[in-house]
Amino acid sequence: MIEPLVLKGFRDSLPMQEIPKKRIQRKLEELFETFGFVPIDTPTLEYESVLLGKGGGETDKQIFHFEDNGGRKVALRFDLTVPFARFMAAHYQELAIPFKRYHIAKAYRGENPQKGRYREFIQCDFDIVGVDSTEADFEILSLMYSSFKTLGIDRYTFHIAHRGLFNDFLEQKGIRDRSVDILRTVDKLRKIGSDKVRELLCEITGDEEGSQAVLEYVTAGEGHGFEETLDVIEALVGRKTESSIRLRELYYLLKKAGIESHFTLDPSITRGLDYYTGIVYETFLDDIESIGSVCSGGRYNNLASLYSKENLPGVGASIGLDRLMAALEELSSPLVKENASADIVVFYRTEEKELAVLSAFSLRAMGVRTDLYLLPEKKMKAQYEYAEKNRIARALSFKDGRYVVKDLATRESHDATTLEEVAALCR
Amino acid sequence: MIEPLVLKGFRDSLPMQEIPKKRIQRKLEELFETFGFVPIDTPTLEYESVLLGKGGGETDKQIFHFEDNGGRKVALRFDLTVPFARFMAAHYQELAIPFKRYHIAKAYRGENPQKGRYREFIQCDFDIVGVDSTEADFEILSLMYSSFKTLGIDRYTFHIAHRGLFNDFLEQKGIRDRSVDILRTVDKLRKIGSDKVRELLCEITGDEEGSQAVLEYVTAGEGHGFEETLDVIEALVGRKTESSIRLRELYYLLKKAGIESHFTLDPSITRGLDYYTGIVYETFLDDIESIGSVCSGGRYNNLASLYSKENLPGVGASIGLDRLMAALEELSSPLVKENASADIVVFYRTEEKELAVLSAFSLRAMGVRTDLYLLPEKKMKAQYEYAEKNRIARALSFKDGRYVVKDLATRESHDATTLEEVAALCR
Repeated sequence: MIEPLVLKGFRDSLPMQEIPKKRIQRKLEELFETFGFVPIDTPTLEYESVLLGKGGGETDKQIFHFEDNGGRKVALRFDLTVPFARFMAAHYQELAIPFKRYHIAKAYRGENPQKGRYREFIQCDFDIVGVDSTEADFEILSLMYSSFKTLGIDRYTFHIAHRGLFNDFLEQKGIRDRSVDILRTVDKLRKIGSDKVRELLCEITGDEEGSQAVLEYVTAGEGHGFEETLDVIEALVGRKTESSIRLRELYYLLKKAGIESHFTLDPSITRGLDYYTGIVYETFLDDIESIGSVCSGGRYNNLASLYSKENLPGVGASIGLDRLMAALEELSSPLVKENASADIVVFYRTEEKELAVLSAFSLRAMGVRTDLYLLPEKKMKAQYEYAEKNRIARALSFKDGRYVVKDLATRESHDATTLEEVAALCR
Repeated sequence: MIEPLVLKGFRDSLPMQEIPKKRIQRKLEELFETFGFVPIDTPTLEYESVLLGKGGGETDKQIFHFEDNGGRKVALRFDLTVPFARFMAAHYQELAIPFKRYHIAKAYRGENPQKGRYREFIQCDFDIVGVDSTEADFEILSLMYSSFKTLGIDRYTFHIAHRGLFNDFLEQKGIRDRSVDILRTVDKLRKIGSDKVRELLCEITGDEEGSQAVLEYVTAGEGHGFEETLDVIEALVGRKTESSIRLRELYYLLKKAGIESHFTLDPSITRGLDYYTGIVYETFLDDIESIGSVCSGGRYNNLASLYSKENLPGVGASIGLDRLMAALEELSSPLVKENASADIVVFYRTEEKELAVLSAFSLRAMGVRTDLYLLPEKKMKAQYEYAEKNRIARALSFKDGRYVVKDLATRESHDATTLEEVAALCR
């Protein structure tokens, strides 16, 4: 006998988890399509050299890679961004530009498992590539807003910052050359606190003054509204810049659309990667901030530079579906509790089997989600347990040529003479 | 620069393929749920020992396997059946039995690519586990029927046979001990023809007579209806058997449900694996039989015997989605041609950008699939090309405070004064 084990960091998804996960995915897909975004897919397995590019970072150690039977060095994708960059370089000529794609798929990293983090996880990415404009930025932010709205999540905040504006500030302070180290340090603010960050910044900037100025910049949002914070930042930079004007314009559109209340300007958001050039954002759930950002991204000025000479500016975001699901479970959200397998279950005795299978077949054709309990020899207790495990609220049985629909919670019964009536009782 | 290549046998899925593939998947998922089937998921990567079990077959050579960073021998799943068996053994206690699951996911085999066969492919499996009855068999067959109906495919045939009945026949002929070899040989009938099969059977049975009898059995369906064929087979076996009675009962239910016309009794269907014990089936598209079976499966009497002492009889089927898609493309089915990215695209000039983004945002909230062409500086020719590449039928633009909806095929325009009117024109 072989023990039925799964690998460390990997999980089975049982129906009670998979039913809401599927529903959430479908809602998001339908929303993306309402926004004119199209789905794509790429292989789970790619050439290692394609996925790692220049390589040498933390990611390399966590990647699942091997030599296939043909001696090729291959690897499992560790995100959906790198394959998308390769995809754009390969198919640029065939696609409509600007290209708006979404991609919901699994990625793999050998990192140590913790709450909401697994070695196999579902990413949900959406990007607009081939244009750099306020409207494109707004499209992504309004799609992020609509995603949370369509899922019925309303206690959350989008934290927006602007990488270009931060660079303007560093330029003005004469420390632009150390921006990568500064960004990485600021990125740790939530984790290690402002005292420790101040200390690290001191080492980078060389003096108290520079360190103090950076801290002032990144905490400018505390206690202020979006536009007020922008005023403070412009004062720190010493002028309005292209980036600050863009941010102001973007916020104006959010207000016009009536969706600005979920957006806060938070200059402490940097997103570690040097990849970003414009707006950047992270999203925190009000009731469980500690689980980390559940939707992040930003604007980059060249997606596919590793694979193509084509210049492809873009803006995008990524929802970590597994982390979001873990948060919703922890919050006992109704979103993860609606997991009935059917609207009604048919119970029958052996001599009623023809009637039972045909009734189920007809109800399904009417669009009623109908289960058939296939063990007619079992007692009523087993029937009820089956319905309960599947969260099914109603049972259909047969009596003297009539249909009997029972509400399994109240144990109340209703008689029906046609299957149309039974269907109506299920709605 | 790195060349943006994908691995041999792997493919990118562009929007024009992915849009219909997603739609087909969603239709099937919704149908499965109407039948009370629940979704599950399992890891793509598992212990090699779990996936290969006893191993030693053809599959072993085609599997993608490697040692992970923790020194574990792991492999990519090569189907969804083996992981399902492992899943049932691991979660039997938590699940409602009989358990009806569906699973649409990718699997991996290093076989040589050919039309409709790739190294990464999507399987769509549905099974009922924990019961052995005519009703359960009917549930699967009626779900197969409903799957093709919901996809709008009507030129196809389900070829049904019964493994137990074939064994009854071999028993009666005194050659039951050679059943595995006989099954494998008969399985090649479509590929190598009856003369070659007769020759091979002769070698196995040792004489002309046995070979002739087997051929008579497997060709008994030619030119006959389901029940007639069953009569012929019962005559060959010399009696009614439990299996033949079950088949007759099953066909009776199919007739009662009014769906029997797509089912043919074809004793040449054996399904190579020794795994099956009851009904077995393959499905061929009338207009492109050569592509092979697009939906196959059968009844097995013990799913999880490798991993558990629990006895789990079951019945199930598997739709090869990639092969089905390849067939539909070859047949220019309307199912793969409906791939517009949106109902309407908004064209705007730079000075109209606020109006444009807010109009798009409002139309989407009304459920209209709305794209926004984000390059206002481009000429009309570029706009039209964009709409055409995305298969979008209508464009919205702005003129003197009114909305103008243009049909892009006929170039006819309609004026509208509200976005509600615009939305109505899109329906």
